[in-house]
Amino acid sequence: MSSIAFSLAELAQRVGADLRGNGAVTITHADTIQDGGDGAICFLANSKYRHYLATTRASAVILPAQDAAECPTNALVSDNPYLTYARIATLLYPPLKVVGGLHPSAILDESAVVHPESWVGPNSVIGPGVEIGAGSYIGPGCVVEAGSRIGRQVRLVANVTICHGSLIGDRVLIHPGAVIGSDGFGNANDQGAWFKVPQIGIARIGDDVEIGANTTIDRGSLRDTIISRGVRLDNQIQIAHNVKVGEHTAMAGCSGVAGSTTIGSHCTVGGGVGISGHLEIGDNVHFSGQTLVTRSFPEPGYYSGNLPAVPNGEWRKTVARIRRLEGMARRLNELEKQVFEQQEKKDPDGQG
Amino acid sequence: MSSIAFSLAELAQRVGADLRGNGAVTITHADTIQDGGDGAICFLANSKYRHYLATTRASAVILPAQDAAECPTNALVSDNPYLTYARIATLLYPPLKVVGGLHPSAILDESAVVHPESWVGPNSVIGPGVEIGAGSYIGPGCVVEAGSRIGRQVRLVANVTICHGSLIGDRVLIHPGAVIGSDGFGNANDQGAWFKVPQIGIARIGDDVEIGANTTIDRGSLRDTIISRGVRLDNQIQIAHNVKVGEHTAMAGCSGVAGSTTIGSHCTVGGGVGISGHLEIGDNVHFSGQTLVTRSFPEPGYYSGNLPAVPNGEWRKTVARIRRLEGMARRLNELEKQVFEQQEKKDPDGQG
Amino acid sequence: MSSIAFSLAELAQRVGADLRGNGAVTITHADTIQDGGDGAICFLANSKYRHYLATTRASAVILPAQDAAECPTNALVSDNPYLTYARIATLLYPPLKVVGGLHPSAILDESAVVHPESWVGPNSVIGPGVEIGAGSYIGPGCVVEAGSRIGRQVRLVANVTICHGSLIGDRVLIHPGAVIGSDGFGNANDQGAWFKVPQIGIARIGDDVEIGANTTIDRGSLRDTIISRGVRLDNQIQIAHNVKVGEHTAMAGCSGVAGSTTIGSHCTVGGGVGISGHLEIGDNVHFSGQTLVTRSFPEPGYYSGNLPAVPNGEWRKTVARIRRLEGMARRLNELEKQVFEQQEKKDPDGQG
Repeated sequence: MSSIAFSLAELAQRVGADLRGNGAVTITHADTIQDGGDGAICFLANSKYRHYLATTRASAVILPAQDAAECPTNALVSDNPYLTYARIATLLYPPLKVVGGLHPSAILDESAVVHPESWVGPNSVIGPGVEIGAGSYIGPGCVVEAGSRIGRQVRLVANVTICHGSLIGDRVLIHPGAVIGSDGFGNANDQGAWFKVPQIGIARIGDDVEIGANTTIDRGSLRDTIISRGVRLDNQIQIAHNVKVGEHTAMAGCSGVAGSTTIGSHCTVGGGVGISGHLEIGDNVHFSGQTLVTRSFPEPGYYSGNLPAVPNGEWRKTVARIRRLEGMARRLNELEKQVFEQQEKKDPDGQG
Repeated sequence: MSSIAFSLAELAQRVGADLRGNGAVTITHADTIQDGGDGAICFLANSKYRHYLATTRASAVILPAQDAAECPTNALVSDNPYLTYARIATLLYPPLKVVGGLHPSAILDESAVVHPESWVGPNSVIGPGVEIGAGSYIGPGCVVEAGSRIGRQVRLVANVTICHGSLIGDRVLIHPGAVIGSDGFGNANDQGAWFKVPQIGIARIGDDVEIGANTTIDRGSLRDTIISRGVRLDNQIQIAHNVKVGEHTAMAGCSGVAGSTTIGSHCTVGGGVGISGHLEIGDNVHFSGQTLVTRSFPEPGYYSGNLPAVPNGEWRKTVARIRRLEGMARRLNELEKQVFEQQEKKDPDGQG
Repeated sequence: MSSIAFSLAELAQRVGADLRGNGAVTITHADTIQDGGDGAICFLANSKYRHYLATTRASAVILPAQDAAECPTNALVSDNPYLTYARIATLLYPPLKVVGGLHPSAILDESAVVHPESWVGPNSVIGPGVEIGAGSYIGPGCVVEAGSRIGRQVRLVANVTICHGSLIGDRVLIHPGAVIGSDGFGNANDQGAWFKVPQIGIARIGDDVEIGANTTIDRGSLRDTIISRGVRLDNQIQIAHNVKVGEHTAMAGCSGVAGSTTIGSHCTVGGGVGISGHLEIGDNVHFSGQTLVTRSFPEPGYYSGNLPAVPNGEWRKTVARIRRLEGMARRLNELEKQVFEQQEKKDPDGQG
């Protein structure tokens, strides 16, 4: 990607990092600590990569104070090197400016209101009554159904679908293939056949939310599905109807939340996690990858429930053992009884 | 969403529910039992929510007979309150009428036949030889490839892809991003490299099926993939080639079925369930969420296989214990031998 | 699907199989061994289906030498019947020829370069600086963002999104709804809120790769995400930023790989497998379905880690037992101590 060059001193000053070394060096791009060369700035945030520090050929490294002494090149010292890196990368690779306008192939209902500083791209379809705030970008192939409201500086990258009546806050970023506000899974059983339950709530996406590629967020069945401000959803996440996700919670790819569950703020949810419906997950709750959550966890904590891979032969034995746990427990009871009874007979007063 | 108002008496009469209280009250919308106010009708179907009944401010509540006495407002008594609610909500929020026509931006192959009472929306693409029955709605950005046949009163919401030759029944509802009839995963190994196996069957979707957002249903490899009438598939479900899903089976989000497996009728499959290939699942089989199904279950029943979340510290110990089950079993055998031998020595006749 | 007819002798000769029986018989289509009739060729590769051989009514069966004697009809004998079938099916059902051109509704940036022998379909959008090689097919509704390069004989079926700067090799086949080169999940924590980390690498897809419907492959965060030549990805797979997948590795549907993990060549990954980030998976590693991979597996092998479904009642007991393993272990220790001590007292010299 094309980038903008800065002196290291200017970068340090802009992000408030502590410069060690030559501030006049020109930083032209970001790179990894192991690959970076002349003009590159890189960061050291994960101790797994510390062994690359001594031999890095980058022009500068962003790192914590305790590693600064061993840095063979210029350094920016930071309490939070990854955040400092993110700020610097945003300077080096600034987001594309949105130029207002409407591609001739875009289909805009006459009742839609698009701010003149926003862009509606080729082959996008904007339905009746839609409102789009200033500085937003509707990429190619997007569909925004009737009555949806999209805030300012929103970016729908491409082929995004926003279903009718959805509310999208400011500075929301939605990646390709995501679907917001689709019908929830509501089915009443009518003597064995399913009768569709109308889904009359909406999907409400707060400010500063990022939604990954092919993620789906259903509308509410009666009231609304709510993704609060600052939430981060990775790719291929499924959020069912009436779910509420609290502020600044981050969920990794392929996780799913069933209907009417509430997740608190500042939670992290690992990849492939499944959360059952009608649960209450508190603030600062963390689930490790592929965990199945079947009860509420109102208290902060780190919760897990899956079994990592081992060689298949070992695993087959373990599965067989697990299947026989009932028998083992019975044998243990039996043994205890026998040992205890023998002991009783020999030592009826329990005086050893 | 905009709704139509009814008197409570008319709703009761239309859906065959037993009215208690003032039939003249006007019902303007549906709401939850805890939030509903003036003009709202709500339902009580899950005992988790019964504690809201005493204080509801809704104009009417749909509930079972045993809860009617405690209802502080007008009531509709029903054996199946959720179904009664669904019918009433469908009256209050009727599906949009389809107006026949073709948006000027739609691309329709000249050999395609679209019923004049059907709508083909903006930027949709309808391929050669496609037939679309009466009263169907092809939303914006949909692609219907060559030779597909779509029944009557079908609704493809938006950005849906129907691959060549697919057959879609009547009254099928398909949500955004779903893909029907894509190639199955067929690969023959040619000395380490993969050789693609042509996928020459089709996908066949029965009447009254609903398919969720970003769900994928592959075409058959030789014969067909079949989703039978009345099936309900939630979002992000993967159905592989040659799978057959029986009538009125419902599958929750993020579940997947591998190739050539047959699932019976009236089954329910929880979220995130994985079903291996070439299996036979009978009628009335139920799998709980995130269960892995590796063998056939021809008999009706409720089957499970996953481990719910617990605090991580506890979990780590459990995983370690599971890894050491082999050792525990050995120690148990050893103990049994010793205790039994001691007993033998002391009591060789087993007369205690 | 429409097919081309061949004599069995010609098919045998074209694919190098050993003909037994009447080479003059006309083969008009492929079918299953149980359903195939006059004109059908089928194959026997899975012993589960061998019982159909005696009664097949197909005109020819492709099978291994050991089954040839029992074949009641013409046979093609092959060491690898499935591969031989795949080659024959490719002759019977040849891929559609690509006719060069540009549908009038396609939106092509003036700086894009499309080979005249390639097709850009209706409502597709090709961004600035894109290059598309000879014989490629860009289906309806596809979006190819700025600066992407697409090789020769590539097929983007429909509604595929290729994000900016992606590199797609030759003969790559990408199914509907797939997203290539979307932003990875990079978030730096800024006092509880998330700050987006620019994703400045790209996605690089090698030659002869097939990518399933609604699969997502993120761009690299700094360097690139790499899918090597010959890889097969099924539907709804999630590949995070910086992942490298080695040549001819095949992954089944719904699996996910977290950031910066490297997977070797010739691996197979079952459906629904989750692989954590920053791991090293070697060549010829195989994971069974729904396995969770939390550590590196550099050595070839077959690894597993999940618990298959059993009847729910049995499962509830098993889960309860697993939860009490800690207690069982304690009781076992206690018993050992007691039995050992008793033995000690009786036999202090350990001479039995």
